[in-house]
Amino acid sequence: MPYFDTASSAPLHPVARQALQASLDEGWADPARLYREGRRAGLLLDAAREAAADAVGCRPDELTFTSSGTRAVHSGIAGALSGRRRVGGHLVVSAVEHSSVLHAAQAHRAGGGSVTEVPVGRTGAVAPSAYRDALRADTALACLQSANHEVGTEQPVAEVADACRAAGVPLLVDAAQSLGWGRVEGAWSLLTASAHKWGGPAGTGLLVVRKGVRFAPQGPADERESGRAAGFQNIPAIVAAAASLRAVRAEAGAEAVRLRALVDRIRTRVPELVPDVEVAGDPVRRLPHLVTFSCLYADGETLLHELDKAGFSVSSGSSCTSSTLTPSHVLRAMGVLSEGNIRVSLPAGVPEEDVERFLSVLPVAVRSVRERLGASGAESEDPLRAAPVAGDPRELVVDSLGKRCPIPVIELAKVIGNVPVGGVVTVLSDDEAARLDIPAWCDMRSQEYLGAHPVDGGTGYRVRRVS
Amino acid sequence: MPYFDTASSAPLHPVARQALQASLDEGWADPARLYREGRRAGLLLDAAREAAADAVGCRPDELTFTSSGTRAVHSGIAGALSGRRRVGGHLVVSAVEHSSVLHAAQAHRAGGGSVTEVPVGRTGAVAPSAYRDALRADTALACLQSANHEVGTEQPVAEVADACRAAGVPLLVDAAQSLGWGRVEGAWSLLTASAHKWGGPAGTGLLVVRKGVRFAPQGPADERESGRAAGFQNIPAIVAAAASLRAVRAEAGAEAVRLRALVDRIRTRVPELVPDVEVAGDPVRRLPHLVTFSCLYADGETLLHELDKAGFSVSSGSSCTSSTLTPSHVLRAMGVLSEGNIRVSLPAGVPEEDVERFLSVLPVAVRSVRERLGASGAESEDPLRAAPVAGDPRELVVDSLGKRCPIPVIELAKVIGNVPVGGVVTVLSDDEAARLDIPAWCDMRSQEYLGAHPVDGGTGYRVRRVS
Repeated sequence: MPYFDTASSAPLHPVARQALQASLDEGWADPARLYREGRRAGLLLDAAREAAADAVGCRPDELTFTSSGTRAVHSGIAGALSGRRRVGGHLVVSAVEHSSVLHAAQAHRAGGGSVTEVPVGRTGAVAPSAYRDALRADTALACLQSANHEVGTEQPVAEVADACRAAGVPLLVDAAQSLGWGRVEGAWSLLTASAHKWGGPAGTGLLVVRKGVRFAPQGPADERESGRAAGFQNIPAIVAAAASLRAVRAEAGAEAVRLRALVDRIRTRVPELVPDVEVAGDPVRRLPHLVTFSCLYADGETLLHELDKAGFSVSSGSSCTSSTLTPSHVLRAMGVLSEGNIRVSLPAGVPEEDVERFLSVLPVAVRSVRERLGASGAESEDPLRAAPVAGDPRELVVDSLGKRCPIPVIELAKVIGNVPVGGVVTVLSDDEAARLDIPAWCDMRSQEYLGAHPVDGGTGYRVRRVS
Repeated sequence: MPYFDTASSAPLHPVARQALQASLDEGWADPARLYREGRRAGLLLDAAREAAADAVGCRPDELTFTSSGTRAVHSGIAGALSGRRRVGGHLVVSAVEHSSVLHAAQAHRAGGGSVTEVPVGRTGAVAPSAYRDALRADTALACLQSANHEVGTEQPVAEVADACRAAGVPLLVDAAQSLGWGRVEGAWSLLTASAHKWGGPAGTGLLVVRKGVRFAPQGPADERESGRAAGFQNIPAIVAAAASLRAVRAEAGAEAVRLRALVDRIRTRVPELVPDVEVAGDPVRRLPHLVTFSCLYADGETLLHELDKAGFSVSSGSSCTSSTLTPSHVLRAMGVLSEGNIRVSLPAGVPEEDVERFLSVLPVAVRSVRERLGASGAESEDPLRAAPVAGDPRELVVDSLGKRCPIPVIELAKVIGNVPVGGVVTVLSDDEAARLDIPAWCDMRSQEYLGAHPVDGGTGYRVRRVS
């Protein structure tokens, strides 16, 4: 049963399991105590800190263990902002950061701070020049992920770090997706990561604060972990996290080459096997194991369900898959299609056959979903679905109000042929995904997107037929 | 090698270990995901939540798992204060709460709120009437531990909860030390606990918020655990925490009776075996497994070291044992002796022989420490150590500036015989423990403590010889 969602959480690495079990007997006592059990726990903690610091490329006293990657991000951002509050209250983030970063930014804004979101291009990367332009005299902190968690695109961290250094602004790098693959190079100031992303146990994150970076921990005082992570340490999990980071790093070089080729195969073959697919993210500057694509006229949730039935666990940034009504902020920032979105993140050691089987299962799953949605006949004429505007055959209105993605796009595709070239179709929709998917469809279909305007109960999206 | 410090952290219970190992294979995926691995993880999480809620005596949807007891306290206090900020910014805590509660109170004060610390009596318990009197019209939250972590005294939680309810104030109970022994009875509103205190793994705490209690989670948003505990859940640890709570509860009734008798034996025998000992805490209304006593003329750190060499791991609230320069705030609030302080917290299943062996080892250890400090001859005349004041033989000054506890008290004891009854000895000291230990010594020795006054470089403590 292939699990292709390591970007969410990786199964426990055998080395992590072994280290966890081995340290349960020695790592339960309070490392701050002077007695035998405390000293033993303290030795384990010190050794884990040294191993993790070596893997990160920092000094052990710069690294603290947190209770999760999210907590590392929240504490890191709050502490760095507060440490530099005399400089100002401006925070810079990219538009495609992990939600933990964006939520911290939201909290900063709610507390009276200001935030600039640096936009990304269609591949999901920020331009170093755009990032540089966002830095101001009152910028207290800048945040940039090492690589994107939804599309795999690597960010130009070293260039952005140089720009930040030149401006005297510390850069916090969220390395959650990449730390298992290698160190983050460049002159960053703070770094965060999450052990369960590399096969360590859940409940352990890293927060690195370089010496010399102004940092004022927020929240109630606590003497553990240099005052940067309140609460009793989970030493067996910390030991397992450090040991597995070292282990995955030892395998990372060779495995990256192998997975990169498998992902290239998916990137090439999926558009050949499945019609109307858009592959997202940078094809070259990317994580080795991750690929994301979206399937026009398909519903992400049903697609996940079909793939799950076929034995494949993947994730999706479609709004149709989650409890939220908005599609992935990453896909939105990139301006790419979100409907029928599938993210594949391969586990280390995945057999080639599993990838081949995925490629044979996927087209069947997509076809089945599209058939169920009545989308197979999309782009054939279906005059019943659209009303001409004031008797003008060159203007049609499709009422998709109350319908969830991908229905509005399917209905658009069905009627576009009903207007002559030069004619306009207006789709009425109250689904947030339409805002992203209708322009993306136009792009894929070489039709002209004219824009959106508010209508009673939703939004009208106007599309001119140009071919 | 007997470990007598379960109040700090308990070794992993066999059921916790078993549950942890069993759930490593099933509990690593994201429980919010729809695929097989996510659903399995979600089922484990749900079952653990139900088991823990049953042990606490609450609804599963009232209980969230946090990354530690400290985090549960910090999040619980911040969320409850914010949820009732329209009522006011007043917080009530007892003077003997765990440092996590007091640090949260400190943070609240730093943020502009007001805090009342309810004092305790010599046994360490608050009086319900004193607690009631501290409640005000603008009190947003009250906090009271179920039992004290340093001296074992149980607090009158049910009475205080009734008083809070009558005043319309929610009561948060820190049940870290008692939850393994049983439910917290009474009409509390919020409850916190820590799994590693009952033999569960570190890295897991509980925060219970009763339905109807106004609660506004603080910090950046996060959708996990009802928005009350940010970060990816450590499900294997959560499963182990819930399973071990159930297991220790099944043994708690019988084991409490047995440990209570062993602690009674320590409470009776230690003062018989060791001269100049004060046993702290309530002899009856107390945790079954915990006892604290202080040894006059002994240095806590050296005593811990001696006991460690003899194979016993215990803790101490003496300032001489830790990196801080102040003695335990609990002993200070109780007004009892802090020097030579030893806390014994017995593990479940401890053999009676281990306790007997401790009782045979302790007198040797205390004697050896006292001898090394030159305290054996304390209370014999030692005229060289004191200077008469302006030639008056009825007034002596002992200069103990720069000397750490228990030296100032030892020097006081050595010279008190040098003044006639009615005469006064002034001890000059810059050690914070002297503020607590000199009055406590007077109490134990039936001498009269006259008070303290600032002197150059420290404090002068005046003692009148009355016997």
